[in-house]
Amino acid sequence: MGKLLIVGTVAIDEIETPFGKTGKILGGAATYIGLAASQFEVDSAIVSIVGDDIPSEYLDILREKGVDLSGIEIVTGGKTFYWKGKYHNDLNSRDTLITDLNTLADFNPIVPDGYKDAEVVMLGNLHPAVQMGVIEQMETRPRLIVLDTMNFWMDHALSELQEVIKHIDVITINDEEARQLTEEYSLVKAAEAIQKMGPEYVVIKKGEHGALLFHKEQVFFAPALPLEEVFDPTGAGDTFAGGFTGYLAATQDLSFNNLKNAVIHGSNLASFCVEKFGTGRMKDLKREEVNKRLHEFKALTQFDIELK
Amino acid sequence: MGKLLIVGTVAIDEIETPFGKTGKILGGAATYIGLAASQFEVDSAIVSIVGDDIPSEYLDILREKGVDLSGIEIVTGGKTFYWKGKYHNDLNSRDTLITDLNTLADFNPIVPDGYKDAEVVMLGNLHPAVQMGVIEQMETRPRLIVLDTMNFWMDHALSELQEVIKHIDVITINDEEARQLTEEYSLVKAAEAIQKMGPEYVVIKKGEHGALLFHKEQVFFAPALPLEEVFDPTGAGDTFAGGFTGYLAATQDLSFNNLKNAVIHGSNLASFCVEKFGTGRMKDLKREEVNKRLHEFKALTQFDIELK
Repeated sequence: MGKLLIVGTVAIDEIETPFGKTGKILGGAATYIGLAASQFEVDSAIVSIVGDDIPSEYLDILREKGVDLSGIEIVTGGKTFYWKGKYHNDLNSRDTLITDLNTLADFNPIVPDGYKDAEVVMLGNLHPAVQMGVIEQMETRPRLIVLDTMNFWMDHALSELQEVIKHIDVITINDEEARQLTEEYSLVKAAEAIQKMGPEYVVIKKGEHGALLFHKEQVFFAPALPLEEVFDPTGAGDTFAGGFTGYLAATQDLSFNNLKNAVIHGSNLASFCVEKFGTGRMKDLKREEVNKRLHEFKALTQFDIELK
Repeated sequence: MGKLLIVGTVAIDEIETPFGKTGKILGGAATYIGLAASQFEVDSAIVSIVGDDIPSEYLDILREKGVDLSGIEIVTGGKTFYWKGKYHNDLNSRDTLITDLNTLADFNPIVPDGYKDAEVVMLGNLHPAVQMGVIEQMETRPRLIVLDTMNFWMDHALSELQEVIKHIDVITINDEEARQLTEEYSLVKAAEAIQKMGPEYVVIKKGEHGALLFHKEQVFFAPALPLEEVFDPTGAGDTFAGGFTGYLAATQDLSFNNLKNAVIHGSNLASFCVEKFGTGRMKDLKREEVNKRLHEFKALTQFDIELK
């Protein structure tokens, strides 16, 4: 059982979609990553920061899944990172209505001693300097460092982003962000350009259109499972990352073939995440449900043309 | 060796993309369908109409591939259907600059006697009443009738479209058109709704995002091969349809598993079509190249997670 260190936000979200609105609910990248990773035999820990306004039952959701929370700093009198967003009718785009960084503004992550030798590190979307600070605290070079980021850091902290990218193995990024980072429209060319910046593997997330994994001359594609209805896309990308890294930490096999499997596991878990508001689907997700849907993924993608 | 009857336009195109512009070149749905189908062991024939302005070397391109052209009416003194279009920078959208129907305006297709027993019929995008007229000329019910259509007919000939849809087995349609036809945003729900209108199989084409095949509770997905550069998307959908029907006519196996293979063959051939202007890539495409790229499709999509 490998160790997975997760760094990212634990947040209070409010979400509105065409199907309704939530009140305040548990959110945050590290939350979704941790819930997804807990589907595998992995010893995972979250490094994050929250205020003491966070309901204890929120943290219990993660604790009950066996996620180590000793790396979550609870600031007395502080307020938890808060995000409010509204999705448009097609659910492919959203407006951020409120972002209150609160305690996250002064986040100085401290990696618990017991996880400074984690084999896999998942750096959720955060300021690249904060992500770099975590890498520097590791006692041994992790076997795999995965980084998620977004266009905001390309606009506001590009040099720090370029620096941390040099030190990682896998970047997960969406298609538009890959284009912005490289000024290449073709995703094949964008992935080549990103590999030259540092990471050996590039995962380009295309939302409902699936995800691509690039490594040198090799490329693998995992579709998103076609669903009757997407209810709330919040956390789907983080759930993908949690499935991807959780599976790799559990199996400790970093071959390209196993990274393919990790992409499928990530996509599989993300297909559940979007079926309910927030963490509603992930928090009670059964392994039998997960296994059943893997069969659907196989039927969706596997064919048996005899090759010449 | 099965018979494939292809009905559709043989056209003169002029195309502009960010990479340059063509003069007048060979185009038309039936042209691309015929070229793609010729990659398989199939006895195919095109039913179409052109003017005597069409250069004989255009028709020779198809004739040399073994496509029977006896069903192409050449109107003396008439002009061939002409289309001029310009693609936007991302190549995902285009403006039609000129459409001159010319002889196509009076197209009254006559199925050659030798193809009235074709096992597979591919009805390219045309007025739905013309498509219906072809079905009515068949002496024996074909084993598979595939129909391609577009939003124009939903806007201008919806009742005729609904009528012909009742008589077909497979519809190929793009995602936006599937939504327009059914008023369902979810492609899963749209495909269900279309199956209720008649066709047992629904292929939803998503361009660079691949194609979905639906049949009752089953769904299969073929990605588009990620390419360094897409040069000219003209004809990609028709090439897909030609690969799909050509393979099915050649193999005569209409199981869902073989339809999956047909979708892969269609996607594989479409990946070549977009690499050069017009029919430039398809007209000299070697079977060895096609087979080689099938290996890439397999590497792109196949994984070996052990299922429980």
